[in-house]
Amino acid sequence: MSAADTDDVAAANAALYEAFETADVDRMSRVWDEVDPDAVVCVHPGWPMLRGRDTVLRSWSAVMAGTDYIQFFLTDVQVTVLGDTAIVTCQENVLTEVSEQGDGNAAVIATNVLVRRPGGWRVQVHHGSPVLGRLVDE
Amino acid sequence: MSAADTDDVAAANAALYEAFETADVDRMSRVWDEVDPDAVVCVHPGWPMLRGRDTVLRSWSAVMAGTDYIQFFLTDVQVTVLGDTAIVTCQENVLTEVSEQGDGNAAVIATNVLVRRPGGWRVQVHHGSPVLGRLVDE
Repeated sequence: MSAADTDDVAAANAALYEAFETADVDRMSRVWDEVDPDAVVCVHPGWPMLRGRDTVLRSWSAVMAGTDYIQFFLTDVQVTVLGDTAIVTCQENVLTEVSEQGDGNAAVIATNVLVRRPGGWRVQVHHGSPVLGRLVDE
Repeated sequence: MSAADTDDVAAANAALYEAFETADVDRMSRVWDEVDPDAVVCVHPGWPMLRGRDTVLRSWSAVMAGTDYIQFFLTDVQVTVLGDTAIVTCQENVLTEVSEQGDGNAAVIATNVLVRRPGGWRVQVHHGSPVLGRLVDE
């Protein structure tokens, strides 16, 4: 895999979080794959699996409408490009209004699958999961 | 993607759960990719991310040693083959000794990434996450 591929994938991955941070429904729509809408999958932390582009985008609209403030700091980001597929694994360190009031930051582990399309890399799968209990290195 | 590919991927995916059910460390070792050991990732439900084949296999030895009885019923299994990469998303319906005593079944959502190697499909990423609260259709 080339460094350019890795950079492009990392940018497309970051766009998912930027769309959420800005609650930008149009941008969120562009982040997700349109070529194979039935293969689109999203698991919000602690949620069951949502399948299909329309269902997933509706869920994001609801989640973003219900979020006053959120900011992500991604750490431990690893990108693996396998042909026209890319796997991104990372930790999402989430700062929300609640945590600003002293509730502590939340850690979410994410696996994202991106596919290379004519217009660039698009998200096919986003799987976020809560880290329960305290991390050893906190 | 061919139906044969899909069947092979589904079988390789099922082998992960069969290895766990039988607590077979050698079989678990064969399930996971050896070609790119640094890209191996495992997220047990509620855990932080574990990276690297050795770390992941050690975690499975510990998890299996600490589990008296476990059985998986996979539902909503979807396989997408993209060249030499396959994405499997499914729900793991987990029956353990505790749930047999009346604690109810646990649902885990899984995203698994498999890679095609000369010897067959191998698991590169397993991400399991707990479903918190009750499912709507329960």
